[in-house]
Amino acid sequence: MTPAISSSVREEIVRTVRDARAAFPRLSTASTDEKNAALRAMASGLRAAGGGILAANAQDVEAAWAGGLPSAIVDRLALNEKRLQEMIQSIEAVVALPDPVGQLLRTWKRPNGLILKKIRVPLGVIGIIYESRPNVTSECASLCLKSGNVVVLRGGTESFRSNQAISQVLRQALRSTGLPEAAVSLIPIAERAGVDVMLQLDQEIDVIIPRGGEALIRKITDESKIPVIKHAKGVCHVYVDEAADLAMAEAIAFNAKCQRPATCNAMETLLVHERVASQFLPGLVTRLRGAKVEVRGDEATSAIVPAVILPATEEDWSAEYLDLILSVKVVQSLDEAVAHIGRYGSGHSDAIVTADEEHAKQFVRDVDSAAVYVNASTRFTDGFEFGFGAEIGISTDRLHARGPMGLEELTTYKYVILGTGQVRE
Amino acid sequence: MTPAISSSVREEIVRTVRDARAAFPRLSTASTDEKNAALRAMASGLRAAGGGILAANAQDVEAAWAGGLPSAIVDRLALNEKRLQEMIQSIEAVVALPDPVGQLLRTWKRPNGLILKKIRVPLGVIGIIYESRPNVTSECASLCLKSGNVVVLRGGTESFRSNQAISQVLRQALRSTGLPEAAVSLIPIAERAGVDVMLQLDQEIDVIIPRGGEALIRKITDESKIPVIKHAKGVCHVYVDEAADLAMAEAIAFNAKCQRPATCNAMETLLVHERVASQFLPGLVTRLRGAKVEVRGDEATSAIVPAVILPATEEDWSAEYLDLILSVKVVQSLDEAVAHIGRYGSGHSDAIVTADEEHAKQFVRDVDSAAVYVNASTRFTDGFEFGFGAEIGISTDRLHARGPMGLEELTTYKYVILGTGQVRE
Repeated sequence: MTPAISSSVREEIVRTVRDARAAFPRLSTASTDEKNAALRAMASGLRAAGGGILAANAQDVEAAWAGGLPSAIVDRLALNEKRLQEMIQSIEAVVALPDPVGQLLRTWKRPNGLILKKIRVPLGVIGIIYESRPNVTSECASLCLKSGNVVVLRGGTESFRSNQAISQVLRQALRSTGLPEAAVSLIPIAERAGVDVMLQLDQEIDVIIPRGGEALIRKITDESKIPVIKHAKGVCHVYVDEAADLAMAEAIAFNAKCQRPATCNAMETLLVHERVASQFLPGLVTRLRGAKVEVRGDEATSAIVPAVILPATEEDWSAEYLDLILSVKVVQSLDEAVAHIGRYGSGHSDAIVTADEEHAKQFVRDVDSAAVYVNASTRFTDGFEFGFGAEIGISTDRLHARGPMGLEELTTYKYVILGTGQVRE
Repeated sequence: MTPAISSSVREEIVRTVRDARAAFPRLSTASTDEKNAALRAMASGLRAAGGGILAANAQDVEAAWAGGLPSAIVDRLALNEKRLQEMIQSIEAVVALPDPVGQLLRTWKRPNGLILKKIRVPLGVIGIIYESRPNVTSECASLCLKSGNVVVLRGGTESFRSNQAISQVLRQALRSTGLPEAAVSLIPIAERAGVDVMLQLDQEIDVIIPRGGEALIRKITDESKIPVIKHAKGVCHVYVDEAADLAMAEAIAFNAKCQRPATCNAMETLLVHERVASQFLPGLVTRLRGAKVEVRGDEATSAIVPAVILPATEEDWSAEYLDLILSVKVVQSLDEAVAHIGRYGSGHSDAIVTADEEHAKQFVRDVDSAAVYVNASTRFTDGFEFGFGAEIGISTDRLHARGPMGLEELTTYKYVILGTGQVRE
């Protein structure tokens, strides 16, 4: 439990969120031109206010050092000229994306003459809860704005001054282009108790998207009265089939583990069919060790490459290392690989490397993950790599959105029914 | 709070739900033929076991009378030969519906040669919590089965024996056709505490769909750790525009109120533009009074039809009567009508009657409801009327599914990515 806050602070948070809710009708019906004008004003506003933002951020960084926060957190928190430019470019990229709102998803006519149209509309008020990185503030604000949604932002306590400085610029841009500034709202207190109040406001906020570590997401899911789209852990697998092209398999496995090990779509466990294990594993393990990867193997793996292997324990199979660590298991069949993924995986991204079409088909059918790959690295699970042009996160839930979430995933739909006086018999 | 239950009963519920979860991989990959064979076996099983089901139901009905339950509840609870035949026919109708699983929603190719496919897959384990009517048991089971989902059913305490008899037949049908019987699972205790245990099992159940009154839905939403797709109240409006064909408006308003007033898509509030109010209201009110509708009006309405009007209070504007009661308000403009619907409506179904295309467009754009009608009765918001062939309910939420939910709304998707060795740079 976080400490209680005063009722006046509570009132201030409630007022902020109610103001955000009240802005939704205007936002949801704003034209593409209006939204793009506001986005351009945001980009130029950030350019003009760069000095002030960096100064506010410097205060956050100083307080973080003074408070003894780990250097990894301070690093994520710190802004500089380059990161500021990236924030601006990312907003400009959103201007260029197509507006999902108003898209006709389907239209049909009923025997009684009614014409039905299913039309894409904004989701509503989206609450984003995140940690450290202040660039999330402008990134989420621009994606929500483009998709006609109102955003209520709650960044980390340690980046409060930075987020305030950034959101003030974004709100000024909205105001200057005739849209309600409450469309981008920041929870107005730095303390963590702000989250607790926010998570109770299910009449005002339609969905919470948390961006952060497992502990944060668990806490939010447990406490929220508002639906949450989780962006939880990725325990991703590459399965090297007996029919794999082994050179391709090595390239894919190495890439999936090493190209950026701290991401949720990096491989954590390698599964190898026993028929190819002794031919495949020694070369790959040597290469992984050269890249400083700690390899943990089951007994069969240890028997093949004994010198370099630490034993993998039961905990390893469900571990999300987010680091240069890999667990390896030799399996007797494709079925065993699929069963292992079903049992220990997180339903994020899993790959098979095989030249056998039937094996690929079976893997694709039986592995129930957001992204199932045939002969490619799991690292492609990403809104940009999928061609969505943007990404607010990667859903590990099954409801509403699964996998990378771009602008379309920030929308819902309504039915418009056109009649000529029809009544129901 | 419901009274605590013993740990052995709790264990039994957990075991039931875990068995259901374990059945999902098999269900999710079952072929259309397999699922249809099981559905046909369910229909013939119900036909063969009719006597036993009616006997179990008679016990429930007797206990309900003895327990002093209201006659409306006993009526919903009671089965007879006709209702049993309808249950069987409804399962046979599901056989004829297209299987949504495996549908290719979108496919595209990336510059790096990766081919992406977005494919419809089942949602997972669906928990249905409902009241009284035992036919919901077979209805939900058949829809979940056809869409490849596992269903965990929790019916009303008062219909426990009926639901047990029905689900035993359905499970036997699954077994006899080679599918796991746990695909249709009933929470094994009659007491309400069974719901409390069920709502905590968020590792096993993917979504809860409650079907029942407002109090039930509120309780579930408050207590559930599992995401809930609410089927909450419908405060539906018909707005008679200044440019309406008044004969059409009268037919639509009368139908929306009177054709089946206890449904969530029936009109509760009529809004009339002041320019047509004195011409329109007297005739309609006379007709409504003839159909025993109690009319409650604002001051302007009372001034036009003084003899027959009770005053409408602030509470009336957000009331879901589900009865032969109507509140009427005269508005000065289309904008006022839209604002009233935004403030008091429930986002379910709202209609405009107008011959002016611009007015229709504005109403359609600005009213943010699941179903927005132009010149038709709100009573058409229904999976059958929309042409979905079935309906598990009508979502009043914005996430995942909005409005009538048919088989497609019981699915999610996965991405299948076909490569030729691609790795991320």
